[in-house]
Parts: sequence; C-alpha cells; structure tokens
Amino acid sequence: MANETVITVVGNLTADPELRVTPSGAAMAKFTVASTPRTFDKTTNKWVDGEAMFLTCTAWRQLAENVVESLTRGARVVVTGRLRQHHWEDKETSEKRSMFGLDVEEIGPSLRFATASVRKATRSGTPPAGQTPPDDLWATSAPAPAGSTFADEPPF
Amino acid sequence: MANETVITVVGNLTADPELRVTPSGAAMAKFTVASTPRTFDKTTNKWVDGEAMFLTCTAWRQLAENVVESLTRGARVVVTGRLRQHHWEDKETSEKRSMFGLDVEEIGPSLRFATASVRKATRSGTPPAGQTPPDDLWATSAPAPAGSTFADEPPF
Amino acid sequence: MANETVITVVGNLTADPELRVTPSGAAMAKFTVASTPRTFDKTTNKWVDGEAMFLTCTAWRQLAENVVESLTRGARVVVTGRLRQHHWEDKETSEKRSMFGLDVEEIGPSLRFATASVRKATRSGTPPAGQTPPDDLWATSAPAPAGSTFADEPPF
Amino acid sequence: MANETVITVVGNLTADPELRVTPSGAAMAKFTVASTPRTFDKTTNKWVDGEAMFLTCTAWRQLAENVVESLTRGARVVVTGRLRQHHWEDKETSEKRSMFGLDVEEIGPSLRFATASVRKATRSGTPPAGQTPPDDLWATSAPAPAGSTFADEPPF
Repeated sequence: MANETVITVVGNLTADPELRVTPSGAAMAKFTVASTPRTFDKTTNKWVDGEAMFLTCTAWRQLAENVVESLTRGARVVVTGRLRQHHWEDKETSEKRSMFGLDVEEIGPSLRFATASVRKATRSGTPPAGQTPPDDLWATSAPAPAGSTFADEPPF
Repeated sequence: MANETVITVVGNLTADPELRVTPSGAAMAKFTVASTPRTFDKTTNKWVDGEAMFLTCTAWRQLAENVVESLTRGARVVVTGRLRQHHWEDKETSEKRSMFGLDVEEIGPSLRFATASVRKATRSGTPPAGQTPPDDLWATSAPAPAGSTFADEPPF
Repeated sequence: MANETVITVVGNLTADPELRVTPSGAAMAKFTVASTPRTFDKTTNKWVDGEAMFLTCTAWRQLAENVVESLTRGARVVVTGRLRQHHWEDKETSEKRSMFGLDVEEIGPSLRFATASVRKATRSGTPPAGQTPPDDLWATSAPAPAGSTFADEPPF
Repeated sequence: MANETVITVVGNLTADPELRVTPSGAAMAKFTVASTPRTFDKTTNKWVDGEAMFLTCTAWRQLAENVVESLTRGARVVVTGRLRQHHWEDKETSEKRSMFGLDVEEIGPSLRFATASVRKATRSGTPPAGQTPPDDLWATSAPAPAGSTFADEPPF
C-alpha cells in the first residue's frame, strides 16, 4: 500500500467492542476511541482539556477477536492504523455525507495507568485436554545479536 | 513541547525489561524493541523480511513499573514516543558517537497475536478494604544499585 | 501539549488556499487536502486507487501567509499537524454533527513531482539595503470582510 | 509493505544535498536533516532547545533530482519516510555497528519561515523549442465533489 495516512491514537474505549461476522465469515470488531488533547495554559500554569475526538475503529479477523476478548468500555488503548474517510449520500435528503474511521493495524491496552497479563492467542480456543502449553510463547521474536555492541556513528 | 519527532513502533521485546531507580528515586525501565519490516516481492508473490531495527526505549515512573510487571522477552508491543539522539565522545578513541533512542509516551502489548487481561494499576499501597494487595510487583526485577549512573549505555 | 494526535498527510489541494483575518487580526489560511491511498492488487498485479480522503487544514499567522503565497489548487503537499474533531448541533434539525480537521504545524510543497524555489520569508516591510522588496504578497488573495465569523464551516 | 516505521521529521539540511548515480543508473540524493526539539520550561517560562537529532536521509529517482535542484544547506524541510537501521561489522575492530537512516517517501521545503515557487518537474529537462507549457500543471489533483456538503456524523 502507498500514500496511506497512518496515524496513532491514544484514548479510551467509549463502549465494549462488539464482534460481528461479515456475510463472508470474517470476524470484525467495531469500537470508538475517545481521545482528549491537553494544553498547558501558561497563565494559569495548569493543563486544560481540549475538545475530545471520537474515532470509529475497525479491526479484522484474529485481531478483532482478541480486541473483544481483551478490552472493555473505558480501557485506555494505543491504536495505530490507516485513517480513512467514507462517503455516501443520504437517501432521504440526497445530502452528501462522509465519516472518518480508522482501519486498525495494531492495538494494545496502554500500560500508563494499568498492568496487563498477556497470553498468546490460540485461534482454536480451548486446547485439547492434557495438552501442554508451549514453552516459548514468543518464539517468533527477533533477539538482538548476542554480544554485539551497537553504536550509531555520528552522521557527519 | 514542540518540534519533536513522535513515532510509533511495532515490534518485539528482545529481553525482559529492567527496572532501575535513579538517584533521585524515579523508576525507569529500559528495553529494546526489535521491529522487522516486510516487503511484498512481486516476482515471487511473497512477503520478505527486511533488516530488523533495534530501538532502545526508556519509560519512566508508573509507566515503567507497569511495563516491567506486564511485559516479558518476546512480547509484541505497540509503542509511541519521541525519537531522540544522544551524542558523546569515546574517551579512548576521541571518536564522536551517537545513539538513537525512544522516550516512551505510551506502550501496550499488541493484541494482534495475543489477548490481555487488563487491571487498573494501583500506585499506592493501600488497596480498598477486602481487596488483596498484589504480590510483590517487583520481586522478579533487580533494581540497579543505588548510586549507579544511568548514562545512556548502548542497548546491547 | 499532550495526548495529541499528530498526523502527516500527503495529498493535493482541492482549491487555492484562502487567507482570512480574524477579528483579533490574526492571519488564517483554510484549505482542503485530498489524499488518495493506493493498494497493490496481487491478482491483477496493479495499483488500485482507494477512496479519497478530504481533510480541512487550518494554518495560522506567518505560516498561513506563506501557504497562500506559495500554494495553488492541485499542488501536492506534505502537511503535518494535529488531528482535531469539532462538534456542533444543527440548529434546524437538532442533529449532532462533527467534522474532522487538521491544525497545521508544518507544510511544504512535495518535491516528488515538482521542484521549488525557496525564499526566506520577510515578515516586516524593511528588507536589507539593496534588496528589492517582494511584490504585494497578498494581491491575489481577498481577505474575508472584517467582522465575519470564522466558525468551522464544512470544507465544501 | 508492512510493519514499517513511518516517521515525519521537521528540521534543517546540514549541507547541500548531493546527487549520486548508482551503478545501475538510478539517481540518489543523500542529505542530513538536523531536528531540534524544544521544551517549555515552566520555571523560567521559556522554551529551551533540546539535543539536536541528525538523521541521514536517502531519496531516489526523480524525487532525488528534485531535492538536489530545490534544496540547499540550511533549508527547513518536512520529510516523511521509513526509519531504517543498517548493521555492519567494522573490518578493523570486528566491532558490530549500526546506523539509523530515513528512506524518504515525501519531502518539501517548510513554509513556516519561507515561501516557495513551485514548478511541476519535467523529467526531460528543457522542453523542445516552441512547446507550450501545459495549462493545468496539476491535472492529476482530486477536486472535491462539486456542490457537496460533507459533514461527519457523530460517532455515537
């Protein structure tokens, strides 16, 4: 993909995310993130809340399932994805309308005011009885080269 | 703050985050996130891994404590913060050096391949009546010895 | 400022930017950037245009003046700023409405398909000796009549 | 491409960009952007410069040519692209090293303190004698739908 507007939003879920299934069978989660900017007022020496922004987010497939299983109303999240605008015409008034939304690429519960117990998702749900959980849940991680001493050279 | 380079990185922790305490008593967590871009090769019709990027991240205060309690080696995270470059001169060689790092603003475990149980952090030690206080949150993390200098060390 | 949603958009101006002056005397430029994402279709092996996104941008003070002097309809730009959402109630229908907009922090003409001659802006009318003052920078832009209200109008 | 770290940097060129040609004949421009964050010091009520960040940027093909033709040392730019880290081994010391760089996607001269005369690039350079320049340099722009009244619906 190219020329996409990738953005990151930090905010709170306005409601529990809902899981839907498209006619083709794909899982989809829809939820709204409310993000409130704060400005430092130099005269009063205090932070002041600005106008909240509400962004409708859409996640797909396993990510959608994990969102619904993990997040509830009020949860503070870090979400990154593609900002999109959808256009349509109001059938009654023939007025042209549009709305902005976020196609979620990655999302996680913010650790700023919360802790989280993370568990690798198993798509099949409940493992068969007697099945040992995998030892290394994160086998796909890229470890740093052992013993290396990295340093950036001055660029000039 | 102004003219800052705010970036969002998605990747995996190369090691368990370490909690340190500065001489002034502030909690700090250091960890490295490895992020591997993928490119779609049109000739082979396959995704190809690019060169991994290793970014040293620093979180402060309660966020640092929550990171250490929640994340372990290999965890996939969404992290957003300010990209910074630190400069120094190698004392032996008089060579000028620098390294890039990320001052973490927000971070969360990615829900792409995992689920998470989120629990609002309680900073103070006085939980509401009837609520069991959490086990020693920091038992598994050895704080740095007091008086050590937290200069920006190479991440490996 | 904190917890702001800083985004970067690449797109084309849908019209010449207009310069307005607020009742307090501040220069302001309003313009809309149309950004069209492209997706690579693996089956046809071709790039396909997605739905265009139209984002209303607002720049202030000298930046506003420089935008109006430098950019015209169709110009491809790189613009970075804070994504904001404004809410209001339709007086006739009592319907709640909102619109997204971008408070411009920095903007420049993209050099992807164009070259640019850059000239440092001189805000005051007293150029150094020997230097010819620029022609009337604002001759082509009709400032809004004083006393008009600059409420956030729909961009079209 | 996926899982890339797309960033936007605002800063000044430390030197005139250099045009190089790769063995395969592709034009490439290398240049360094210096970006200095500023922090507001509440005690002194003043903005304080932080440590400058130097990021090596690489542009390709026509974009590279346009950069070299348009930008000079000191120019303030808005540049967006993919943050990359390159790794190598110092042949003499066998020390592992790395450096960060930016693969430029889009770049433009910032209009914050400057104006720009923009001219659509013609790859062939000088047009044949007698050739009329195109009327609409920006024919590829996406105009807003005529007469439409867009408004975002409240997300809730």
